[in-house]
Amino acid sequence: MMQHIRRLLIGRPLHNQEIIHEKLPKWKALSIFSSDPLSSVGYGPEQIVIVLTMSGLLAYGYYPYIFATILAILAIISISYGQVAKANPGGGGSYSVAMRNLGVTPALIAAASLFADYVLTVSVSVSSGTDALVSAFPVLIPHTITIDLLVLFGLLMIVNLRGIRESSNVFVFPTYAFVFGIFTLIAVGVYQVFTQTAPFIPAASVARHPLDWTMLLLVLRAFSSGCASVTGVEAISNGVPAFRKPEAKNAALTTYYMAIILGIMLIGISFLIMHYHFLPLEKETMLSQLAAVVFKRNWFYYFIQISTMLVLYIAANTSYNGLPPLLSIMAKDGYAPRYLGLRGERLSFSNGIVLLSIIAGILILIFHGNVEHLLSLYALGVYTAFTISQMGMVVHWRREKGPRWVLRAVINAIGACLTGSVVIIVSIAKFSHGAWIVLVFVPIMICIFRAIRAHYNDMAEQLHLPEAIFSQSLTQTKAKNLVVVPIASPTRVVAETLRYARSISEDIIVLHIATDEAAGKKVEDKWKSWNPGIELVTVYSPYRLVIQPILDFVSKLATQKNDYDYITVVIPEFETKKWWHRLLHNQTGWVLRTLLIFRENVIVTAIPYHLKK
Amino acid sequence: MMQHIRRLLIGRPLHNQEIIHEKLPKWKALSIFSSDPLSSVGYGPEQIVIVLTMSGLLAYGYYPYIFATILAILAIISISYGQVAKANPGGGGSYSVAMRNLGVTPALIAAASLFADYVLTVSVSVSSGTDALVSAFPVLIPHTITIDLLVLFGLLMIVNLRGIRESSNVFVFPTYAFVFGIFTLIAVGVYQVFTQTAPFIPAASVARHPLDWTMLLLVLRAFSSGCASVTGVEAISNGVPAFRKPEAKNAALTTYYMAIILGIMLIGISFLIMHYHFLPLEKETMLSQLAAVVFKRNWFYYFIQISTMLVLYIAANTSYNGLPPLLSIMAKDGYAPRYLGLRGERLSFSNGIVLLSIIAGILILIFHGNVEHLLSLYALGVYTAFTISQMGMVVHWRREKGPRWVLRAVINAIGACLTGSVVIIVSIAKFSHGAWIVLVFVPIMICIFRAIRAHYNDMAEQLHLPEAIFSQSLTQTKAKNLVVVPIASPTRVVAETLRYARSISEDIIVLHIATDEAAGKKVEDKWKSWNPGIELVTVYSPYRLVIQPILDFVSKLATQKNDYDYITVVIPEFETKKWWHRLLHNQTGWVLRTLLIFRENVIVTAIPYHLKK
Repeated sequence: MMQHIRRLLIGRPLHNQEIIHEKLPKWKALSIFSSDPLSSVGYGPEQIVIVLTMSGLLAYGYYPYIFATILAILAIISISYGQVAKANPGGGGSYSVAMRNLGVTPALIAAASLFADYVLTVSVSVSSGTDALVSAFPVLIPHTITIDLLVLFGLLMIVNLRGIRESSNVFVFPTYAFVFGIFTLIAVGVYQVFTQTAPFIPAASVARHPLDWTMLLLVLRAFSSGCASVTGVEAISNGVPAFRKPEAKNAALTTYYMAIILGIMLIGISFLIMHYHFLPLEKETMLSQLAAVVFKRNWFYYFIQISTMLVLYIAANTSYNGLPPLLSIMAKDGYAPRYLGLRGERLSFSNGIVLLSIIAGILILIFHGNVEHLLSLYALGVYTAFTISQMGMVVHWRREKGPRWVLRAVINAIGACLTGSVVIIVSIAKFSHGAWIVLVFVPIMICIFRAIRAHYNDMAEQLHLPEAIFSQSLTQTKAKNLVVVPIASPTRVVAETLRYARSISEDIIVLHIATDEAAGKKVEDKWKSWNPGIELVTVYSPYRLVIQPILDFVSKLATQKNDYDYITVVIPEFETKKWWHRLLHNQTGWVLRTLLIFRENVIVTAIPYHLKK
Repeated sequence: MMQHIRRLLIGRPLHNQEIIHEKLPKWKALSIFSSDPLSSVGYGPEQIVIVLTMSGLLAYGYYPYIFATILAILAIISISYGQVAKANPGGGGSYSVAMRNLGVTPALIAAASLFADYVLTVSVSVSSGTDALVSAFPVLIPHTITIDLLVLFGLLMIVNLRGIRESSNVFVFPTYAFVFGIFTLIAVGVYQVFTQTAPFIPAASVARHPLDWTMLLLVLRAFSSGCASVTGVEAISNGVPAFRKPEAKNAALTTYYMAIILGIMLIGISFLIMHYHFLPLEKETMLSQLAAVVFKRNWFYYFIQISTMLVLYIAANTSYNGLPPLLSIMAKDGYAPRYLGLRGERLSFSNGIVLLSIIAGILILIFHGNVEHLLSLYALGVYTAFTISQMGMVVHWRREKGPRWVLRAVINAIGACLTGSVVIIVSIAKFSHGAWIVLVFVPIMICIFRAIRAHYNDMAEQLHLPEAIFSQSLTQTKAKNLVVVPIASPTRVVAETLRYARSISEDIIVLHIATDEAAGKKVEDKWKSWNPGIELVTVYSPYRLVIQPILDFVSKLATQKNDYDYITVVIPEFETKKWWHRLLHNQTGWVLRTLLIFRENVIVTAIPYHLKK
């Protein structure tokens, strides 16, 4: 039954040889790798306004300055990542770059930041996508979180467990539809503004309060929030091997195209937002407000909202192409649990996919699908990874010394300084707004990564088996095995258990724990009269403890035996026909197993007795 | 560590012989068994007012009529329970009375009702006690539920797991302090009223709207809520064996004393509430309002609030003396899980105590410690159990035919009719206010009780072992045992596992599941070069499944073997040094164990390998 549902959802297992490698043309790669950065138009500008309008319209006038800075950052990051693409034709993200060029600690910092980044990309993109949906259909507002979780577990997780092909055409349409929609929105909006046919908006003083300390902090916080608009730029440079030849050059070009498209969209949207001086609404995104003003909720408004939703969900999907492979690389290095490095039955890294979905789902639940709270965490992780990756590139250029290496190194160094400054600004400006979580999270993650590695090293050492010891252990004389069978009273289950005990050893002790004398006597008498030729030991337990006396008995036997020999405790256990019947049996057998497993050289065997009804 | 905390909280185990039976004088028994009924003064009258004032003061005037009816019920129930006490010198509540006199179904109805009743007593009393506390100290209002749960788990559960002596003096003081406090409150309050020294209260028209259908339903609902004031009367008749000789007569007398004290307190409080025509406040109990008006929050006000709180917590405690023994009697009859019938290490019925605490805790959480919502559920269970118990008594008197049996039977019959009518009224009046929950709950519980009994019967039948079969199973030839050891690669753990395998059988197959050919070849070559003299079977799994091929392999072996023989799958398993290290190993061993245990004649043994670091 479970098996059938699983097959239906996930599909049949795939053979090792079914891994597919396809080369992408630029126009297709652009749509596939750019959903993450392009989709940030859907929430980025709004985030700046949300912070600026916290105290009314006092600081709205700072928007253009903040926005210009962010555009500059976009330009420099794009050029830097064009470089990264050229230098890393093998692909691999900040973690690999840092591991190769900077050493373990920077690599782990990058890994922790990327981990936070990928998880937050999923949470932020899914909840923003749903925001776009409910803005268009307010009747869905009460179900926002349900929709988030449905998309996350019902769509993204399942689809990725099936192992969707990165190159699927599914991704192409919504991305270009979104770009088309936004460009049209900007064109029509700007035309209306300049022809004075724009809807009448009551005048409001868009103020620029003098820049005192409070205002500066506000502006910096708005800037920090806005930085989330230019995240995801690194995706293309991580996917170099998927491009057609010449891969590196094509990837670099695609990065630039993407940056230009993103830049135009940001400028246009920002211009219109400034013109209409929108205020953030809790239940409607700013993009929806803008589209509603320009198109008056005609069909094109719905086209924009739906394509925004789709592109955001697809942006969430990019994390599924990013985190599981990263974890698998880390697992091979020993910094993540081994099973994260295994391909599942559909050749996808299933454990990583499930892990990512669960953590993103928990974040959505904790923050009630509220994007703003997540974004302050988001930017920090992204820009830390950016910085480390750029620094790695500087080292790379110095070592490789290709043509024009100094120029390239300088570009990356400027990129690193810039993104590093963003990290510092965001850390300070948003410290009490959640940034501290990331600042605590990253060091903790690094400790965890190192501890995992240490454990695997220790284990490998302990498990290593020289051939001499192996042969010796098999040529030694057979170990003796003393079997202890704890029983409550002689029943059919006990008979069956004893039959097994006799098949594995000649030395059998049957142990009965009697909580009062009368009961103990009764069992002893019955045993004697039946005379099975196996010793019955009765231990009285006037304190009514059952498990402790068994443990004590076994411990005593263990001290008397040869180190080399075994004690096997054979425990009769009921397998009930219906699951709830299990609640009617005390779990003595299970508790005993759990406690005995901590003793050395004591082996526990459960003999299942299958109840027929 | 855990063991130490446990000892500290629960105390050392107690010997079977440490059960104490103490005989109580009437004055002490009164305080111990009456905390439940007496404490209902703390919330009972308020509940009537809450319902009546739902539509303003329109129906306040019906209070005296409702109240008089409830007093009459108190009188009749007390006389009836005096009878029950006389007839049941062995103690035992409605369940036992019904089982002896009426048969299984009524007994189970009583049991289900009592179950609901006891659980709700704990929830209602604990949350009312906390209400009394936070009324006096409003600063605690935000922590109401935390206090509820602390009292429930930190105090009641722990104290009862330690096994507090029912006869402890701890209970005597608060009960009498409460009675003293309420009597003083009434005396001073009534004096103030009649000497016109009472604080001036603006006149309000305490109306009695004509009795139309809507009003009738409101009055009946108020009556239903008020009925909760006279619950707990049965406690004394359940505790007959604890009285000094002549037990039955003393218990009956104590019941009457209790009823008189309760009656006086209810009359006095109701008179004052009527006089001041209080309205219910969400954050302050009516008793607190009254005490505050009469004493103006001087020290005596705080004395009343604290003693009310204590007596309510102690009332909650009476359920701990009631439900666990009831469950243990039911467990002996086979209608409840067996382990509820066992005395724990402190001689208390620990499993029942924990169960009661958890369910009551869940109720408090669901209803946010809001007493009114719980009370509508409460009265229904109590009066159902009352009715069944009285009916049982009628049958009892008819059968026993002692002196004046007809009179006694008539008294109990009247009691049964009265309480039965209350059940019907409450069911109708409060149907949509939660009564339906009880009406659904009771039949479900009865089905569960019966299903439990059926399972135990089935099991006893299946486990019964005639001596012939027992002897036969031991004289048969020894069963053969084929051992399968699944391995990933030859490590020290595998060597240790094989050593054990050799100690239990000569027939060993080592099974390796290879997910790709290269890895499989490597393991095979190593195995051949080491030549341990044990067969290695390599199974290729190009779909990268590991567990399924093992299950298939074992199934195939199972079809080839003699029914009488065994297959033992010996699984190497790591016991990690630190708990979190466990997360770094895939749980293949555990999954395998869980899946294999469902197969007949396949035994699973885990060989723990204890990692040293």
